[in-house]
This record gives sequence, C-alpha cells and structure tokens, in this order.
Amino acid sequence: MGDNMIGMKGIIMIVDGMADRPLKELEGKTPLETAQTPNMDRMAKTGINGIMDPIKPGIRAGSDTSHISILGYDPYEVYTGRGPFEAAGVGVEVKPGDIAFRCNFSTIDEKGIIIDRRAGRIREGTKKLANAINSISSINGVEIIFMESTGHRAVLVLRGEGLSDKVTDADPKYEGNPPKEVVALDGSKEAENTANVLNQLIWKSYNILKEHPVNLLRIEKDLNPANIILPRGAGAVPDAEPFESKYGLKSACIAETGLIKGIGKIVAMDIIDVDGATGGVDTNLENIANSIIETAAMDYDFLLINIDGADEAGHDGNLKEKLNFISKVDKVVGRILEINNTYLILTADHSTPISAMDHTGDPVPLVINGPDVLVDRVDKFNERSATLGGLCRIRGSDIMNILMDLMNRSSKFGA
Amino acid sequence: MGDNMIGMKGIIMIVDGMADRPLKELEGKTPLETAQTPNMDRMAKTGINGIMDPIKPGIRAGSDTSHISILGYDPYEVYTGRGPFEAAGVGVEVKPGDIAFRCNFSTIDEKGIIIDRRAGRIREGTKKLANAINSISSINGVEIIFMESTGHRAVLVLRGEGLSDKVTDADPKYEGNPPKEVVALDGSKEAENTANVLNQLIWKSYNILKEHPVNLLRIEKDLNPANIILPRGAGAVPDAEPFESKYGLKSACIAETGLIKGIGKIVAMDIIDVDGATGGVDTNLENIANSIIETAAMDYDFLLINIDGADEAGHDGNLKEKLNFISKVDKVVGRILEINNTYLILTADHSTPISAMDHTGDPVPLVINGPDVLVDRVDKFNERSATLGGLCRIRGSDIMNILMDLMNRSSKFGA
Repeated sequence: MGDNMIGMKGIIMIVDGMADRPLKELEGKTPLETAQTPNMDRMAKTGINGIMDPIKPGIRAGSDTSHISILGYDPYEVYTGRGPFEAAGVGVEVKPGDIAFRCNFSTIDEKGIIIDRRAGRIREGTKKLANAINSISSINGVEIIFMESTGHRAVLVLRGEGLSDKVTDADPKYEGNPPKEVVALDGSKEAENTANVLNQLIWKSYNILKEHPVNLLRIEKDLNPANIILPRGAGAVPDAEPFESKYGLKSACIAETGLIKGIGKIVAMDIIDVDGATGGVDTNLENIANSIIETAAMDYDFLLINIDGADEAGHDGNLKEKLNFISKVDKVVGRILEINNTYLILTADHSTPISAMDHTGDPVPLVINGPDVLVDRVDKFNERSATLGGLCRIRGSDIMNILMDLMNRSSKFGA
Repeated sequence: MGDNMIGMKGIIMIVDGMADRPLKELEGKTPLETAQTPNMDRMAKTGINGIMDPIKPGIRAGSDTSHISILGYDPYEVYTGRGPFEAAGVGVEVKPGDIAFRCNFSTIDEKGIIIDRRAGRIREGTKKLANAINSISSINGVEIIFMESTGHRAVLVLRGEGLSDKVTDADPKYEGNPPKEVVALDGSKEAENTANVLNQLIWKSYNILKEHPVNLLRIEKDLNPANIILPRGAGAVPDAEPFESKYGLKSACIAETGLIKGIGKIVAMDIIDVDGATGGVDTNLENIANSIIETAAMDYDFLLINIDGADEAGHDGNLKEKLNFISKVDKVVGRILEINNTYLILTADHSTPISAMDHTGDPVPLVINGPDVLVDRVDKFNERSATLGGLCRIRGSDIMNILMDLMNRSSKFGA
C-alpha cells in the first residue's frame, strides 16, 4: 500500500431523507437534479458513484434502521424499537437489557380522560417534572430512570431482573380516551411484571405531577398541566458491539436528533453536540460545518455525520424548503472537502420524496471520494446519474466493508 | 402519498423463457434485440429498467422456482418438487403435508415390462381411468387422490398421517424396464410407509386399468392401453403463507400451464382459466389479452401473468418461432399498457436460449412502468440495453418489495 494510506480518516455524511422521486413540478426531475449542488457534483465527478439500498431493495428504512445498517450492524437484530435509541440519545446511560420507552407528558382530566396528549406542547419545566418522577426510585424492585427530551417528549428506562419489551403502549394515540392499561404481548412472566410496573408508574406519575408547582403555575396561566406520563414503543436495549472494537476505529458522531445520537451512543461513539443544531431546515449549518472540521482535526479515525433538515422538508412536502436546504448542505460538503487524508462518503439514509411525504424504499445515490477510488464517468450527484456509477448497486451493509478496505484497515479473508 | 397512489394495481407479466443469448445467425444479437417489439420498447423508454437474477447470479431457475422467488417466497423453502404444484395446477385441492406426485399413464406388457411410457400418447378417456383409480379410496389408511392432466399426464396425491416425500420414482425413465420398486430415500418409517403405499397402488392400478373399457377399446383400435400409472417427483405440499395475507393484495393468476397455475393456487391466488391457452406458440394470445383486461377491471389489486410459448420455442431451438412469438406477445403488452392506475412489471422467469435449448442462469431484462418511477435512458427492451438501466441488477426476491413500495403498500421498518 502507498504511504497515502497511513492514517487515513473515514467520514460518512448522511443527508437525512435527501433522495427523492421525479416530480411533475420539476418536469420529471428530482430535487437533487434541480438544486444547485456544485460541491456534491464535484464529489461525483472526482469519485466513484452508485446507488445504495439501506436495507435491501424496496424496503422502506427508518432513519434508525438505515444508520444501523450503514454502520455494519444487522438492524433485524439490533433494532428493538425506537425507545432505546431515543433514551440513549437524550443522555440516559442505557445498558444492554434495559427496557426503554418513548413517553409523552400528557394532560388528563379529573375523570381520567386524556384531554391533551402533548400537555399544551409544554416547553419549560419538564426537567423539574422529570426529577419528581425520578423520586420514585423503584417499583417491584425495578429501577425507574426518567428523562425529559424536547418539548412534551421524554424517555423512560426500566432496569432490573425479569423484564421484557413485549408490552403494549399506554398511549392510546387519540385524545378522549383514558390511558390504556399496559398488557403483556406474549403472556410471559417477564412481560406481565413489566406491564405491572408500568401500570403502577403511570398512576404514580399522576399523583406526583398533578399538584407539582410547575403544573400549578401552568393551571394558573390556563395552560394544560403535564400531569401524567404515557409510555410507548418498548424496546430492550441491544447488546451491540462497540464500534471501536468492531472496526478498530476511534469514532465520533455529529448528529442533530436524539434518535441518531442514540445510535451513536449505543455503539459507544463519542457524541459531539453542536450549538444551534435543531434537526430542522432552520438548523445552524455553519456551526455543524465548523464542528465537523474541528472534530476531524482531532484524533478520530471515523466520523458519522447526520444532517436532518431535508427529511423534515420531505415529510412536510415542502419542495422549496427541500431545494433550498440541499443547496445549503452542499456548502457544508464544500467545507468537508477541505479535510485532507480522508475517504468521504456522501449519501442519504433513505428517500423522503416530496410526493410521498414519508420514507420510501427507493435506492439512494452514494459517492466515495478519496485516493485510489476508481473514478467513473458520473459527474452529477443525484438519483439518476448515480445509477450509471462504478459501484453499481450496493447495500447499506456493504458500506463499512468498502470503507475499511479503502482505509487499508481490512484483513484478508483467506490466503 | 399523492392521490395517484390510491388504489394502484400491480401487474407482473412474465414471458416464460423469453430471454436469450447472442446468436451467430443474428450476427451476435439476441432474439429480443431482433424481434419487432414496439410496445416493450415503449415500456423501456418510459420506465425504469434493469437486469434481474430470478434466484441469484448464474443459478439456472426453473419456471416454478423463479415464479416462487418473484412472488417473494424462498424457493429453497417452498419448492419441495414439481408434484405439489402440478397437482394444485390441475385442480386438486391440496393441503399442506399432502405428498404429491406427477404420474404418467403407461403401457406394460404381460411380463410387466414398460413398452410405452406415454401409453400411445393417450388423449381421451383419461378422466374415466382416473375415476377408476379413485375407487381405491385408501391404502393402509392413506387417502388416494388421483387426477388426469393433459394427455398421458396425471397427478397423484397421498393424504394421511405418517407420510414422507423422501421416496424414489416408480418411473424408470426408459422403456424396456419394469416399473421401479419405490423405496425410502432416508430409511425413515414415514418414507417406508409411503413407498409401501405407492408400490401397492401401482399394481392395484394395473389390476383396475388393464381391462377397463377405455383400454379394451384402445386395444381394439390397436392403440397402447393406459394400463398402469407410474408416479415420480414426490413432494410434500408446502405450508406457504397465502399471498393476500402476506401482502394484503387481492390477487389473480393468469397462466397457461398447470405448473404456474399450481404456484398461484398454493399461495391461494384466484386462478383465471383462458380458453385456447395451450402453453405453446399456438396459444390464443387474443383470448389471453382479453382475459387480462377483463381481470384487471375487476377488484383485484395484483395480477400475475405467465405466457409460455417463447419457452417452448427456446426448448425446441426454433429461432423463427421464438422471434415470431415474441412479436406476438408484444401486442399483448400493448393491450396491457392501456390499463390505467397500474404499475406494470415486464420480465422473463429465465432465459431459454435457442443455442442452449434449455434454461440457463443468465440474468433477464426487467422494466417497471408507472407513475413516479425514475425513468432512465434505456429505450429498448432487451438483455443488453437493460444492463444500462436505473435498477442496475436486482433479484427475483426484490421484485415484490419494490412493487409494494411503489404501490404505497409498504410499511416502514424503523422510525
């Protein structure tokens, strides 16, 4: 191997939901074919391109399952639900075997009916409310760990022996109903026990929260009190091999959302928080770019980057925002291209087409830049050009193997 | 999802054995590159193209294993042999666990030697002969279900406890031999029992058939009597999930051969019979086209179509017939393109090259038409052009996932 291989870094930059479908209003072009993306196009021209199925062809990946796959873990094994990743993402030090849930702070009336699932979209005081819930240190010997997230969102972790994630949601999803009694899905003793702990916890939360000073103040201001918690999306924290032991790469994760940070956390990456990173189209891309440059200058071998705004624009069906955001992200790509001694992979975790307003199962474009890549004839970074690239069609689960090989970190299978 | 996604139908049209290899007599072109196919080419031009390996690259698929794979079932699990599919295809209501066989009506002489494996290619009276065999209602407590198929062909189903498909064929494949004694392949009690039932049945069939009026008449006319049945190709009827419960699609199968109808039947599709569909190059394509149009107008969400003649021409090494038949099928494609609100997939189940006169393991061209597909630059439907398409190279097992995603019938894996 040439000297240029020594100490090469690897960067995977994932522009969440960036890929799309042809749009009538763009005369059959996609947003990526329309937006101004000189830096992405430069990557295409000087790199090797292809299309990538995050899981496999036609499968609609979530951001979580796609990232898990791209990092080389099997999502069908590691992905137990959104709870564990959200909990890790907001900062709970989860452990394999913990049962994690997403929660809402909600409002119930005196008859026990949910009148507001989001407790007036409460924004302040949730840390105090969470602390109050944490005063219940255990139920039936099960440790209760509760942490507020953004707005009315929170996470709950149950830690102890004899627990299971095979339990139903307490959140009935629609207002006008009482909290649903949590029941075991598989009739196991562990699931029965977990359901029992949750049912106790939900009503204990009501007793603790209903007259909490934060809520008394809200009532005074005619705001819905956050007087109960409603857990959903149970998942057992997976026992995933740390990224560094799997690949021998010291790694950092620069992501905006709790979900992606949580994935980084669960595989024991260092999580880099960025001021002003909102996960929306209003995020502070300059701070993100600066953070990438700074982190790349540190002794990390590998960076996982996720920028989320294009996905938000896709879910909203907002073409103008998506075009605009992609062009802004292109400038971040331009900054990253200044980093030396790096293999840079640019891709999306899935399509969030404007026409679908949700994730679809289409393959996404992917380009690799760096020394020694077999440069192909593709000179634009988009869904259609990428189909003519030298990588042909690969899967998310191929990416780390390809990168490890390019970085000369792989070992030979055989002689 | 846009309104254009609501209630979209999916059609997979499989032109059996249509794909081929370059031919010297066509100056290195394939039959598909040579035949007049304006409608298929229109599909290529307005669709997304690619090449497809029915099972995986280089594997020579049968029509049965390819269709099983294309429908999203694992042929290594579901395909237990041809018997079950043939039996289902001719109309036996098979049940999971039944052991099914293909049979020939054959002719043995008085010394018990097979003098004609096909009983003078008998065409008439086989229904009566089959009824006579069904008068043996059971042997060793095993139910005997026998049904005539086309010509000298028939199917046999054994139903009961303690049976196995691990038994040898009774058909010795060459005339001048006695029927082979059926033996257990794995020494299990179930296989021993099954072999015993079959050995009894074969000689009972001789006793029943040898002086049956149908045969007495044949002897009088100097035709070989159909005086024994020779089972082969044992297979246990698989417990395949019904297509409708797997995908939520109400589906119909328009096919010519018992084998493909049997596949449709085993996954509980509605089977649409077409008058004049012979499975050969002489089939009535107009009736098939009319039937497709009529069925598509009904409340089905999904149609599987198989047209068989190009495969026959390939097996016969008859280039002229293959070219001619492909051009005629092209007109059926033209008719199907008139159906609105449809994703239409056109492909072959395997190559049956003129030069090979049998199936080969080459990938086959595939094109998808419908709203929102990423139209590529391919403008001809053939083996070579398809390699430049936007789908790159996919597998049979990807097709339903891709179609379900396009039809907006998929759910997201993850968040």
